[in-house]
Amino acid sequence: MHILITGGAGFIGVRLARRLLSDNRLTTASGPQPISKLTLLDQVAATGLPNDPRIRIVAGNAADPALIGPLVADADVVYHLAAVVSVAAEHDFDLGMGVNLHGTLALLEACRKTGRKPLFIKASSAAVYGGPLPAAVGEETALFPQTSYGMQKVVGEHLVDDYSRKGFVDGRSLRLPTIVVRPGAPNLAASSFASSLVREPLMGRAYVCPVPPETPVCLLSVRRVVDSFVHAASLTPAALGHTRAIQLPGLTMTVAEMVGALGEIGGKAAVARLSFSPQAEIITIVKGWPVRFTTTRSAPLGFRADTSAKQIIADFVADELDGKVAP
Amino acid sequence: MHILITGGAGFIGVRLARRLLSDNRLTTASGPQPISKLTLLDQVAATGLPNDPRIRIVAGNAADPALIGPLVADADVVYHLAAVVSVAAEHDFDLGMGVNLHGTLALLEACRKTGRKPLFIKASSAAVYGGPLPAAVGEETALFPQTSYGMQKVVGEHLVDDYSRKGFVDGRSLRLPTIVVRPGAPNLAASSFASSLVREPLMGRAYVCPVPPETPVCLLSVRRVVDSFVHAASLTPAALGHTRAIQLPGLTMTVAEMVGALGEIGGKAAVARLSFSPQAEIITIVKGWPVRFTTTRSAPLGFRADTSAKQIIADFVADELDGKVAP
Repeated sequence: MHILITGGAGFIGVRLARRLLSDNRLTTASGPQPISKLTLLDQVAATGLPNDPRIRIVAGNAADPALIGPLVADADVVYHLAAVVSVAAEHDFDLGMGVNLHGTLALLEACRKTGRKPLFIKASSAAVYGGPLPAAVGEETALFPQTSYGMQKVVGEHLVDDYSRKGFVDGRSLRLPTIVVRPGAPNLAASSFASSLVREPLMGRAYVCPVPPETPVCLLSVRRVVDSFVHAASLTPAALGHTRAIQLPGLTMTVAEMVGALGEIGGKAAVARLSFSPQAEIITIVKGWPVRFTTTRSAPLGFRADTSAKQIIADFVADELDGKVAP
Repeated sequence: MHILITGGAGFIGVRLARRLLSDNRLTTASGPQPISKLTLLDQVAATGLPNDPRIRIVAGNAADPALIGPLVADADVVYHLAAVVSVAAEHDFDLGMGVNLHGTLALLEACRKTGRKPLFIKASSAAVYGGPLPAAVGEETALFPQTSYGMQKVVGEHLVDDYSRKGFVDGRSLRLPTIVVRPGAPNLAASSFASSLVREPLMGRAYVCPVPPETPVCLLSVRRVVDSFVHAASLTPAALGHTRAIQLPGLTMTVAEMVGALGEIGGKAAVARLSFSPQAEIITIVKGWPVRFTTTRSAPLGFRADTSAKQIIADFVADELDGKVAP
């Protein structure tokens, strides 16, 4: 089978690609399928991948029909991870609309034109929620996103649902909690702090956290989100029912508890590299996000949360830092 | 003030225009504003309007930026009623997407470009609901539309919410129940039967109803929906809060009860012109629509339902049939 990943140079895209190549197959509702081709599309060329003849790396605009048409033509599975992140989409409305809304539409249209009904597995986000919220939220919660990014993610979910209902794709939208620990530099996602406050100190760098220690967060590890994207391919349409959207489960804690786990792995030196300087814009966005999710849908469908922040951080050190933390 | 109505040749558009011209003013959150210009945009030229120098009738594509840009340039209020109706949008996916989704986007973009933050009052629909539903639905209900029309209406609501939050427009989306009694010929709206089963017999014509008598419906009269569009302009953003979507209240009854009211106004002769021949496609769509709505939001905001089917039908006879029914 041919698998296309948009946002293929992003940290989840690259790790999903490595996992798929390592597995050699992807299990769909029809059973395990050998992977013959894996295309990674992103604005920049994906790096950090093994030398494997099945990989094709494409740099270009994932919202450009002329580019994506031929890439999608023989695709059996499309992982749509490409997105302009929350703060960037809020600052540059046209950029966010172009990539997050029109890009998703263009990709769905390209899939529809193939007539092959590819699996279409999209990254959505807990940013779809907003306004007055119950204690725990999930697919049964009405969506009032309070960011343009969240609005674009909701619209994407509705498009995936209707394109699936019409038989143009076989879609799934996974609402991601805050994914940690993201490697690389801090970025313009409002959730960037949750990774940075672990990664930067463990790599020997100071970090100023823009939200106070008592801030609650809901975390999902990189390992588990990759598991979830792989697992999503195996579900039957019947199991999904009236919507293709799934809220992935997460682990709820405060930033202070994350700092405690950081200390267990990185010691006092790591914690000492952290300081706090609240930034109103980030706090406003983060406060709007729910931190407790219902699992009445995700658990029976087989999606799993992590067990502890310490384990998440230990896995990050093993996977991304070659087991080494700064002294 | 300049008011633009898209779908201005449609039955609600024309009746809203007549009402606005008759009122001479529209009350916004800033108070009553005299109406100096009223533009009616539709694919065909609007008819049935008084001879009034304030009216400008434009025939053209409401999704064409080159056409709508100049029309919106000095608009203070945009009533966005243009839409491809439910069955038509289901049969021709591209047509529905073009008008209902891309058309709404183009109009919102045109409004944004003016920098004048016009009032943007959009017709949404109870077709936004679907999937498993509580006994009564409203803005707090999660939306799982099961038609492309419903999906496009949900997307429109989210766009209106976010364009309002960003300060590009001052939006309101009114979710309409089934509007009765629509004059003219039966059309491709799945709800068309609710008007036809009253209008056709009263005009002396036979009508074959595609849903059985026990079918529940939720009705709002033409008078009340026009009231609602006028009233929506007067609300403050603060009163609307975290979403600009409002579920309009309706009157719940069965088709059989409608037929009873038809008999009270039109006599046995009218009822005798009705017959029933269930059509699966219409029944499937109509069954997915909720028929009981919460009024926890609409009532405090000042929106009102009708009092009886008999009154709705009597008003139709007075307003559209010059008080005369077929013997």
